[in-house]
Amino acid sequence: MTRFRCAIHIVPRRGILDPQGKAVADALHSLGFATVGEVRVGRHVVVEIEAASEDAARDQVKAMCEKLLANPVTEDFEIASLGHA
Amino acid sequence: MTRFRCAIHIVPRRGILDPQGKAVADALHSLGFATVGEVRVGRHVVVEIEAASEDAARDQVKAMCEKLLANPVTEDFEIASLGHA
Repeated sequence: MTRFRCAIHIVPRRGILDPQGKAVADALHSLGFATVGEVRVGRHVVVEIEAASEDAARDQVKAMCEKLLANPVTEDFEIASLGHA
Repeated sequence: MTRFRCAIHIVPRRGILDPQGKAVADALHSLGFATVGEVRVGRHVVVEIEAASEDAARDQVKAMCEKLLANPVTEDFEIASLGHA
């Protein structure tokens, strides 16, 4: 078995209201960052996992996202990076 | 002015307790993902901003992280990507 480290981005699906993103955008404007446009706030999750291969690790991470980490109705996820820990 | 899109990762500083990461790791174990090791949960923020150049955009994003987005005591930030929107 090999230890892998995987970074996952979980973001609000496009078209779905992102109140957190809106709040951050408003706060940035009030701090003087006038040229800020859309802001989207999601989660950056880094998972260490032991697996037989990189593909096996990728499959497990996908299953984790589908079962727990990402809300299938309102969020999208992407595996941003996967490599040896 | 040009419109840029920037992705920022804000993560708990190493050595600082990450209760959210611990909770996610425990939940993954209980779902049968036994080979999961450390889990760290941070924020993935995507900001659209107009700036005169890529360097100017990078400087503004850094200032946003230092002033608002990242807690200077408990979190580290990195600009994961910066390019034309």
